[in-house]
Amino acid sequence: MAFKRIETLMRRKDIDAFLFLSLENIRYLCGFTGSDGALVVAGGERTFLSDSRYEQQAKEEIRAAGFKKYKRKVVGLAQFLGSLGIKRLGFESSAMTFESYQQLKEKLPRLRFVPLAGEIRDLRARKEPEELGKIREAVRIASVSFADALPRIKPGARERNVAEFLEYRMKRNGGDKPAFDTVLASGPRAALPHGAASEKRMQKQETVVVDFGVRFMGYHSDETKTLILGKPAVDQRKVYETVRRAQEKALSAIRPGVSVRRIDAAAREVITRAGYGKYFGHGTGHGVGLAVHEEPSISPKGIGVVREGMVFTVEPGIYIPGWGGVRLEDMVLATSRGYERLTGLAKDLKENILVR
Amino acid sequence: MAFKRIETLMRRKDIDAFLFLSLENIRYLCGFTGSDGALVVAGGERTFLSDSRYEQQAKEEIRAAGFKKYKRKVVGLAQFLGSLGIKRLGFESSAMTFESYQQLKEKLPRLRFVPLAGEIRDLRARKEPEELGKIREAVRIASVSFADALPRIKPGARERNVAEFLEYRMKRNGGDKPAFDTVLASGPRAALPHGAASEKRMQKQETVVVDFGVRFMGYHSDETKTLILGKPAVDQRKVYETVRRAQEKALSAIRPGVSVRRIDAAAREVITRAGYGKYFGHGTGHGVGLAVHEEPSISPKGIGVVREGMVFTVEPGIYIPGWGGVRLEDMVLATSRGYERLTGLAKDLKENILVR
Repeated sequence: MAFKRIETLMRRKDIDAFLFLSLENIRYLCGFTGSDGALVVAGGERTFLSDSRYEQQAKEEIRAAGFKKYKRKVVGLAQFLGSLGIKRLGFESSAMTFESYQQLKEKLPRLRFVPLAGEIRDLRARKEPEELGKIREAVRIASVSFADALPRIKPGARERNVAEFLEYRMKRNGGDKPAFDTVLASGPRAALPHGAASEKRMQKQETVVVDFGVRFMGYHSDETKTLILGKPAVDQRKVYETVRRAQEKALSAIRPGVSVRRIDAAAREVITRAGYGKYFGHGTGHGVGLAVHEEPSISPKGIGVVREGMVFTVEPGIYIPGWGGVRLEDMVLATSRGYERLTGLAKDLKENILVR
Repeated sequence: MAFKRIETLMRRKDIDAFLFLSLENIRYLCGFTGSDGALVVAGGERTFLSDSRYEQQAKEEIRAAGFKKYKRKVVGLAQFLGSLGIKRLGFESSAMTFESYQQLKEKLPRLRFVPLAGEIRDLRARKEPEELGKIREAVRIASVSFADALPRIKPGARERNVAEFLEYRMKRNGGDKPAFDTVLASGPRAALPHGAASEKRMQKQETVVVDFGVRFMGYHSDETKTLILGKPAVDQRKVYETVRRAQEKALSAIRPGVSVRRIDAAAREVITRAGYGKYFGHGTGHGVGLAVHEEPSISPKGIGVVREGMVFTVEPGIYIPGWGGVRLEDMVLATSRGYERLTGLAKDLKENILVR
């Protein structure tokens, strides 16, 4: 599937070889899970190149590609590409640094470099059944681990200790590692959309935003709960219910063919009408797979439409400096008729009030 | 210190503004610890730019720089740079993708872009006393955590469970997070220099390579122990002692002014003479600081000389496919007269035999 698309693109752009440098695309295309290497597709031949650290691992892991070892990446790549007798080389311009480009170009002065970015950005956006299975397992691990950690979320507990325990449980329950630094931000700190867990102790009556995920066989989960440590105050209830309505509006807009901007707008309208427009500074969602953030981008500047098999988050939020914040995030799979929610933890307010 | 060097470089290259995109350099220069943004130095003014997610955090963290918010990075950067009325822009070519370069260049067609890489590669190589304090604390946390986990390293235990426990202890003992995926590879798997901990159970008589580290306030530790789960066999003893001698030779070559290649060669000679040359495929060491791998590179192709205040690893290894491997890694600080070992765990063979 993926290689067919790449070969079609190569013909259309009249390129003889395609150089992949992004580790996610390399893993997607040939199965290598290490942290350094390059994949070259040329005339139906695929070659994965890496250094001696990964020789044994590459030989065990890679499929549908040969292996070639280099000592220094740029030198080895230039030698290999030079040996192919090609004229036009396509490359992932979003995965190559300007420095590597310069070095490679200098060694291969007669080769024409064709930068490609938008053309392959959504290469991994629609998930294969096997990928979906891994995503579902990541979600499951994250859910049970959250349940393990939930009793520790209470007034007096330190944000950091709860986040540590949650991350430990995610690994013990079978995950590779946390998908990202767990966000666990309480009270005024919840106004930081990316507030890493701190030494702060949670207080009665505060809201607590917990954004967490795990990687399983390379695939990620991503989910956000907001808890309230007491009977919600009027403003807490209003902000929470607004975010929840925004999330539901966005979810109900999902179907194949609908523009990603429309989904973002659905959430944004609810928040803006409630008077919190300026407190929702980020996009409504993002694709999730081998990368925690990938296509599609569900945002005011997002490109394209929803297609069956895409997996992405829906995560509106309201962040009020000095007061705090609320974010609710679920992962969904776009289906032929709408969507399927992949994350299972409750997002309704009544399930997220912790009175202890 | 750092800004003086940057300003001197700007004069020498006749550039009016310098764009930093690497998060480590941004943190080093203005203190921002988040995961997205840009720093522009122009005519004595420094401006940090990021999006709304990081507005509050940036205002709390940054020093010696103003703050400017953008919605979309390339657009915001282009607007800001355009407003400066500059002619020549220096940029970190190792931190900018070719795609971002293209987009920025398209929006600022009259600006001259000057790629800089080698000129600033060692910007962070010599550590300030405050940085050293953080590195020492990272090393301390890693050491005590290793001691916590050591009783679990024994025949029958799964690699993965021990690695998880070690990582959990590193966080509990005050670390931000593991510096990298812990390597814990036993028996034949020890031949993988980057063998992530697996489901494999350790066996009596196997060697176990444990490469681990932690981040503390942004700074990293990095250390490798090799343990033998039984009385060493003749070949195990020979490989271990060879690596240990190689490490000691490299260590004793360290002094200000000595070429980094000389240190690498010192280790490599010992291993080659013992007949294991082809089983030592990586460099002897690397700088450690805000990045786990930074300058100087202690390798056959490394550039420059050792200078007082540099912090780097010395980590020769021998990896024999099908048999296993040994790596011994310490972190050192280059001093005015030689070096100070920063890591404290014993590397002598007799301290690393676990007979249980």
